[in-house]
Amino acid sequence: MSLVFTSITINTMHLQDMLDFYRIIGFQFKAIKVDKGSEVYRATHNGVEFSLYSIKNTQKSQIPSLQLGFRITELEKSVAQLQKVNGAMCILDPTEMPDGMKSIILDPDGHSIELVEA
Amino acid sequence: MSLVFTSITINTMHLQDMLDFYRIIGFQFKAIKVDKGSEVYRATHNGVEFSLYSIKNTQKSQIPSLQLGFRITELEKSVAQLQKVNGAMCILDPTEMPDGMKSIILDPDGHSIELVEA
Repeated sequence: MSLVFTSITINTMHLQDMLDFYRIIGFQFKAIKVDKGSEVYRATHNGVEFSLYSIKNTQKSQIPSLQLGFRITELEKSVAQLQKVNGAMCILDPTEMPDGMKSIILDPDGHSIELVEA
Repeated sequence: MSLVFTSITINTMHLQDMLDFYRIIGFQFKAIKVDKGSEVYRATHNGVEFSLYSIKNTQKSQIPSLQLGFRITELEKSVAQLQKVNGAMCILDPTEMPDGMKSIILDPDGHSIELVEA
């Protein structure tokens, strides 16, 4: 089993303040085009994509405030096991995508975990 | 300005379920000794420390549910700027520690950000 940490996304109601903050630390953000008028800013440092995603209201949002991404081997077998873990929930079954086989699953704390086949 | 992503910590009320989940993805956790009887499990993949920290109740907790760590240059100058960002709050002023000059500051979304001088 091989595992690579690929991304972290924080959904925020305070996009401009968050950009100001993380730019001071040294993040070099690029604006990313997304649907529905949302704003996403992304920076990549030592191989990990760090994104800030603007949302209207975290309290009422169905979107988990934290999303993590990993590239792993044995994706389908892992997803089958993950679904049996207490509190986990599969959002996207393993599906062939342009960037490879992908699945999205909520961990027991409700964080959205994106898995891509290595 | 140089920036290295070093760590992510998730505080969880469901430690065992979270360990089960992330072990399936491929994390190789080690138990870490901490004060006050808390439990922390840590795994390092492609240079990023990923920790699960057991807490009793996220609702009543003063501990942010997400902590990120970065190694940066110009720490003191950055912290002085960060404190001026709307919503940010310094928890630990830049302080000489065994592993170098360190500061902890809450970002505008309340995530705890640990900065260590590169």
